[in-house]
Amino acid sequence: MAEEMMNNKQIILKHYVEGYPKESDMEFKNSIIKLNVPEGSNVVVLKNLYLSCDPYMRSRMKNLEDSYVESFTPGYPITGCGVAKVLKSGDSNFQEGDLVWGMIGWEEYSIVTPIQSFLFKIHDKNVPLSYYTGILEYHFTWYLNYVTFISIHAPVGPRWMPGITAYVGFYEVCSPKKGETVFVSAASGAVGQLVGQFAKMLGCYVVGSAGTKQKVDMLKSKFGFDEAFNYKEEQDLDAALKRYFSDGIDIYFDNVGGKMFDAVLVNMKLHGRIAMCGMISQYNLKKTEGVHNLLCLIAKRICMKGFIVSDHFHLYPKYLEMIIPQIKGGNIVYVEDIAEGLENAPKALVGLFYGRNVGKQVVMVSRE
Amino acid sequence: MAEEMMNNKQIILKHYVEGYPKESDMEFKNSIIKLNVPEGSNVVVLKNLYLSCDPYMRSRMKNLEDSYVESFTPGYPITGCGVAKVLKSGDSNFQEGDLVWGMIGWEEYSIVTPIQSFLFKIHDKNVPLSYYTGILEYHFTWYLNYVTFISIHAPVGPRWMPGITAYVGFYEVCSPKKGETVFVSAASGAVGQLVGQFAKMLGCYVVGSAGTKQKVDMLKSKFGFDEAFNYKEEQDLDAALKRYFSDGIDIYFDNVGGKMFDAVLVNMKLHGRIAMCGMISQYNLKKTEGVHNLLCLIAKRICMKGFIVSDHFHLYPKYLEMIIPQIKGGNIVYVEDIAEGLENAPKALVGLFYGRNVGKQVVMVSRE
Repeated sequence: MAEEMMNNKQIILKHYVEGYPKESDMEFKNSIIKLNVPEGSNVVVLKNLYLSCDPYMRSRMKNLEDSYVESFTPGYPITGCGVAKVLKSGDSNFQEGDLVWGMIGWEEYSIVTPIQSFLFKIHDKNVPLSYYTGILEYHFTWYLNYVTFISIHAPVGPRWMPGITAYVGFYEVCSPKKGETVFVSAASGAVGQLVGQFAKMLGCYVVGSAGTKQKVDMLKSKFGFDEAFNYKEEQDLDAALKRYFSDGIDIYFDNVGGKMFDAVLVNMKLHGRIAMCGMISQYNLKKTEGVHNLLCLIAKRICMKGFIVSDHFHLYPKYLEMIIPQIKGGNIVYVEDIAEGLENAPKALVGLFYGRNVGKQVVMVSRE
Repeated sequence: MAEEMMNNKQIILKHYVEGYPKESDMEFKNSIIKLNVPEGSNVVVLKNLYLSCDPYMRSRMKNLEDSYVESFTPGYPITGCGVAKVLKSGDSNFQEGDLVWGMIGWEEYSIVTPIQSFLFKIHDKNVPLSYYTGILEYHFTWYLNYVTFISIHAPVGPRWMPGITAYVGFYEVCSPKKGETVFVSAASGAVGQLVGQFAKMLGCYVVGSAGTKQKVDMLKSKFGFDEAFNYKEEQDLDAALKRYFSDGIDIYFDNVGGKMFDAVLVNMKLHGRIAMCGMISQYNLKKTEGVHNLLCLIAKRICMKGFIVSDHFHLYPKYLEMIIPQIKGGNIVYVEDIAEGLENAPKALVGLFYGRNVGKQVVMVSRE
């Protein structure tokens, strides 16, 4: 490929966002890019294939002053985890044609420095490439660097490695035992669907909540949850939980926070455990909802733990060893919601906060 | 002592209580008691000496339906932990003149069944007798039975064993390390004053909050806290905490809940630990205050644990072995607020919820 000037469509963040993000906070824009590696440079020219949409990205749409969180820059493309193909490389670790994942721009082509973008080469291509934005995504170096600086001050923890997050959050944080009762909120999402399947594999009784009939059906038919309910159709979340957990909940894997969290607290069993993975119901509120039932933690001796997966990076090999055969054998399924075309990326991202995605939200920019 | 009819002054709960308890919710009343042990009975006749006033007693003033919590019975004396002298005994384990502690009535004399009242004989009399309502109080059987049934449904956990509670909460729940920063709320109270002293013994930096100048002074001068502040004089609790913890808090020992809890969350360090011991600021509210900053638990990977000391009863011998020499050697001090006379018991109990007590609140009914 010669040194060519190319059109490069991009998704630009127009300004910092308050409240729920809107598609109009972003702009689909044409720019020009020169697809070359300057003499002596170690940059890599990428053709972007898949982009990941994740709840944590909401925090980056704010102007976070006095914080080490990397806000997006208004006027520039949104960035996030993605899968790409190497067109040209000034770095000897990457060759033309390599498939990679890492931090890329929301655009057709990106020119990146591998270390700054935490590029990682994809070796196993016998699974859908998009899985590298979700169930299989992980990168040691990236996390060790990025999370260390982001997480201290971040109002929300990084969320862009759903597979290992589900694994670590369930097995390490929840200390689950066979036969225990498990509740998962946002259960059809990128993380929740895996937590439910892991819990079933272990012999737990598993109930999930989601926000549409389609998702609720999928929880039972696709992921094997014992029970599932649509939280939007429940007048009384406490009563809904009592319907499915007459003896209480041993483990709550919380992805939503807020009212559901409060309802769960009064339904926990003695010595229950709560893994706090995320609070998507709260990210767009100016002031988060108050949680009123924390007294339950005392009477029931509950252990509640916030976690970020980077603290458990040593488990990644063990996770891969477990998950890849399960995926190939069809024992673990992973549902993605793939929006076709970069122009649909803003809608896909915004949709996360209204629960429009069914499974892990991905944007397909280009097939390989 | 012959079979005699005696006047027996009592503190009666007049009715169930809503909101803050008032002295007028209780009545100081004369009754008549026959101080004898019926032939063949195993009851014990007690002359009551000291009564314990504890925050958990607030929950027993409610009519807790559908609950295994033992509410007080309106029209009858309040009951609680106390120290007494045996006048007559139908139980071979107790002799006339023995000093005991256990569950007794708020009255001058009680006739009890030792097992039902979990009576425990006092052997070591080289410490103030009143300490058996606080720093030294514990009873295996009593706890194993009582806590098991109360704690599942109790809106507040049992709170009537301050010494071992402080020990277990600090050493077991907080996993403290030398040099860490520790914050204790209600720091001059029955539990807090000990937590602070344990933390100092371990080489931690310790700050406490309390609600009067007298208490704040005492935290530094008497208990050796590094710093202390009056939370009632702070417009901005967040700013107050930042003044004393410029690098954040490793360990928070929470006795109060509510607004202080929320302010602490944003000041916690990465991998911080929170022991949830009680929430006295919330017990009298119809609806507890909402806690808004739980997202901090995720970004900072905080472990928050409610605990009840009965789960750790095996540590009691170790605790006694540690604490008794420390008390006798003057390294650990324990401040009690002793109200003189049964007639002052309602005022003492009500005062707890206004922070009027300075140290562990006790009522002296009679000296030995």
